[in-house]
Amino acid sequence: MSIRAVVWNEFIHEREDADVREIYPDGIHATIASALSADPSITATTATLDQPEHGLRQARLDETDVLLWWGHKAHGSVSDEVVRRVQQRVWEGMGLIVLHSGHFSKIFKAMMGSPCSLRWREAGERERVWAINPSHPIAQGIGPSIVIENSEMYGEPFLLPEPMETVFISWYQGGEVFRSGVTYQRGAGRVFYFSPGHEVYPIYHNPDVQTVLRNAVRWAHNPAAAWKGVEKAPNVPVERSPEPITLRGGSVHKPGEPGFR
Amino acid sequence: MSIRAVVWNEFIHEREDADVREIYPDGIHATIASALSADPSITATTATLDQPEHGLRQARLDETDVLLWWGHKAHGSVSDEVVRRVQQRVWEGMGLIVLHSGHFSKIFKAMMGSPCSLRWREAGERERVWAINPSHPIAQGIGPSIVIENSEMYGEPFLLPEPMETVFISWYQGGEVFRSGVTYQRGAGRVFYFSPGHEVYPIYHNPDVQTVLRNAVRWAHNPAAAWKGVEKAPNVPVERSPEPITLRGGSVHKPGEPGFR
Amino acid sequence: MSIRAVVWNEFIHEREDADVREIYPDGIHATIASALSADPSITATTATLDQPEHGLRQARLDETDVLLWWGHKAHGSVSDEVVRRVQQRVWEGMGLIVLHSGHFSKIFKAMMGSPCSLRWREAGERERVWAINPSHPIAQGIGPSIVIENSEMYGEPFLLPEPMETVFISWYQGGEVFRSGVTYQRGAGRVFYFSPGHEVYPIYHNPDVQTVLRNAVRWAHNPAAAWKGVEKAPNVPVERSPEPITLRGGSVHKPGEPGFR
Amino acid sequence: MSIRAVVWNEFIHEREDADVREIYPDGIHATIASALSADPSITATTATLDQPEHGLRQARLDETDVLLWWGHKAHGSVSDEVVRRVQQRVWEGMGLIVLHSGHFSKIFKAMMGSPCSLRWREAGERERVWAINPSHPIAQGIGPSIVIENSEMYGEPFLLPEPMETVFISWYQGGEVFRSGVTYQRGAGRVFYFSPGHEVYPIYHNPDVQTVLRNAVRWAHNPAAAWKGVEKAPNVPVERSPEPITLRGGSVHKPGEPGFR
Repeated sequence: MSIRAVVWNEFIHEREDADVREIYPDGIHATIASALSADPSITATTATLDQPEHGLRQARLDETDVLLWWGHKAHGSVSDEVVRRVQQRVWEGMGLIVLHSGHFSKIFKAMMGSPCSLRWREAGERERVWAINPSHPIAQGIGPSIVIENSEMYGEPFLLPEPMETVFISWYQGGEVFRSGVTYQRGAGRVFYFSPGHEVYPIYHNPDVQTVLRNAVRWAHNPAAAWKGVEKAPNVPVERSPEPITLRGGSVHKPGEPGFR
Repeated sequence: MSIRAVVWNEFIHEREDADVREIYPDGIHATIASALSADPSITATTATLDQPEHGLRQARLDETDVLLWWGHKAHGSVSDEVVRRVQQRVWEGMGLIVLHSGHFSKIFKAMMGSPCSLRWREAGERERVWAINPSHPIAQGIGPSIVIENSEMYGEPFLLPEPMETVFISWYQGGEVFRSGVTYQRGAGRVFYFSPGHEVYPIYHNPDVQTVLRNAVRWAHNPAAAWKGVEKAPNVPVERSPEPITLRGGSVHKPGEPGFR
Repeated sequence: MSIRAVVWNEFIHEREDADVREIYPDGIHATIASALSADPSITATTATLDQPEHGLRQARLDETDVLLWWGHKAHGSVSDEVVRRVQQRVWEGMGLIVLHSGHFSKIFKAMMGSPCSLRWREAGERERVWAINPSHPIAQGIGPSIVIENSEMYGEPFLLPEPMETVFISWYQGGEVFRSGVTYQRGAGRVFYFSPGHEVYPIYHNPDVQTVLRNAVRWAHNPAAAWKGVEKAPNVPVERSPEPITLRGGSVHKPGEPGFR
Repeated sequence: MSIRAVVWNEFIHEREDADVREIYPDGIHATIASALSADPSITATTATLDQPEHGLRQARLDETDVLLWWGHKAHGSVSDEVVRRVQQRVWEGMGLIVLHSGHFSKIFKAMMGSPCSLRWREAGERERVWAINPSHPIAQGIGPSIVIENSEMYGEPFLLPEPMETVFISWYQGGEVFRSGVTYQRGAGRVFYFSPGHEVYPIYHNPDVQTVLRNAVRWAHNPAAAWKGVEKAPNVPVERSPEPITLRGGSVHKPGEPGFR
């Protein structure tokens, strides 16, 4: 059975800005979904901000293995309820790939628990994305580095938790560096952040960038069944304790009472 | 200059439950603050849920080096605004020590980005808190393990991000294990979670537990000045680029315009 | 193409001790190899200490995807040259699974760079191996914990580097805990340590333990081509620098000279 | 009591090469020791390869809190016995700071268990050492980055274990990036690798580099007593088990017999 990927995009720049529309006439999401579909093991569809519930109804998320997220100017327009729902699905095992300016999306900040801030410059400068862990599944099929001739600079300090793995570090012509590909686990779900992807340059048309995205979808896919109730704290009553024990001391809970949240 | 610690407590069990009141007549916070004050390098004060803004006005947080958090049945009553404010202060450099049932507090879940769920049993069973990294600053001055004769069981899986360091792992009489002391960094702030501390047992009177708390306050203290604006993403304009570069390509930002959030 | 696993065993206890021989008449390696072969994607063969070059000639290692290592009383008899060769192959991408008393093997200590010491007791007590990261590929297909009725106690502190992922933590009847399943990456190779497996108990006949070993082989398998020369530090001469630069300043190297080691 | 730092240097380039001697007339070690001594909490002395036992007799190591290591062309001349001794002291709690070309020293490779290889170029190009974790104790007192006008390029992939913390990442004029400051723990000892320091440029005269070294010495210092025997695996006999248990099952050890190594 194929991996069901959903590419989410706020889809605003492409409609408001002629330069961006020329690069992505059907939206960034369409270009990325098409790139993912080049892998027969991936079935990619799309969702956008303007759809009902941003295209991310519970039933759809329940059938999504990996969600890719591109957002920029409308982070604040994303419904808190949808963010909560996406986070819950990641905890249950859905993979999450956050792209470029998605570093400041509600969902990424909720996942990281850190500011996710950085330095930036839009000057069309050259970026070299070095695969510092070339053995990582996400870095397969590309060379030592991906050269992006025109890129937006994202610079350190990038206020992230220490990653599980750092896969890519970028060099910028203007003098900065950036951890451009990092992995995390949250609950049963894997999270990958990948920084290349500024909307005014044709970065998602770059074959190596497309290879990374396909790799990332396969890496982020957790084939296990969804872990329903991962957020709950079940009581293990004394009579079902693995080792036999006897109740001692006081209690603030009545028998059978659920725990506090 | 001493380390300014604030011990926050929801302070409800001690008022509603005679058993708990007997153990902590002035509240868990008073006992912990007293234990911290045994270290002359720490100045400990307290704050509680029922105070205006839960005792955590901005001005007070600005003068707090390390915040300890005990909450259980009233997590939902903590104001989102105060949670946001505390998280911001941690990002700026304030240390945060989350205790026991605080694993389900709004602030800890916001910091971790993971479910923070676990299994539990209130049976007064024995817990052995093993110092698995005995060289860690937080584990100094205690023996190989702390024995807590009556404890609430907290069991794995504990849905946390992979810790920066695992300092303690607990054994329970009933057959479970638990990562009872783990460290993280979020922004400029250090975070330590420590699980012992159920309200119906006199755990915060245990001298070894008190030693751990004093160690943790010193460890979590970041002596650097507060990093104001840590959550912001400053633009580095092309004319202030470290290496001289020339503007190329398109843009969706007008000159001088701030970035999107 | 299937994953080529080699199960290495010092194969001494089974020949010297009747109790062990009764449990593993053909050796621990034979039992493990048979268990691995239940997965059609794995082809398992064996190697033992008494074979020429311990059964690990360069040509064989070059055709090995994942090596499993069981050793106990003869760590010192393993040739340093073979250890160096195995380490090199792990750096090139071969997976390494170290079992039980292999914590003190030359190869594991060389891989970890830490003492790898622990506390132990051989009392036939009960061990509960908790899957603390139940979403990890290595923990699939088993329940919340594996119960081993008779086990050797391995207790913390276990002097390891902080793991990439902690998959299992064990509880012992006698009161100790142990990180019984931990992952690392070294060069292009993945490393997994799994502690259950004392020779006087039939632990490798346990179906859940066998499931873990099969999972671990698949997890440790790096499908990329071997990274020959991973240990070398190639010079990037100034004329092949990614960005054009001009030679400046002094040098202790003559043009074309290799670096020092 | 002050922190006792020993700066170890192979001390060859300074004697063989006039350019290097001009920069470091008394050796790199003398310059670093002098820089460390600017901090009254540090007492710095030196040791060199040509001294008996390389200046690192057991008695001296026993009185060393933090060892700094600079080596390049004579890694192979360092005695294996001294390497083993240094590693043992780190495991017992001595801090270790490995500098520049020390990435290929015997001691660093033994500590990491990984190839420690990298790419390099000696072109006198500009390096920008970015403090990507500006809140880390080692990054205090410097600005956002250290600019080294003439440096040797060290480029990724740097074959290291995933660090505990990445403190610095370097940008090079020629287009490469490098994790130039990373932390680890091994046994009771802390390890910091810092890459700037090529011998033909006056890098250790840079005030910011000197600040980093002083910070690193304080960070690496473990004030606890040396953990003698950290490498041993003590038996916990059944009669001293924390919880009372009864001996069951077979054994390959005779009562009182030490474990195998």
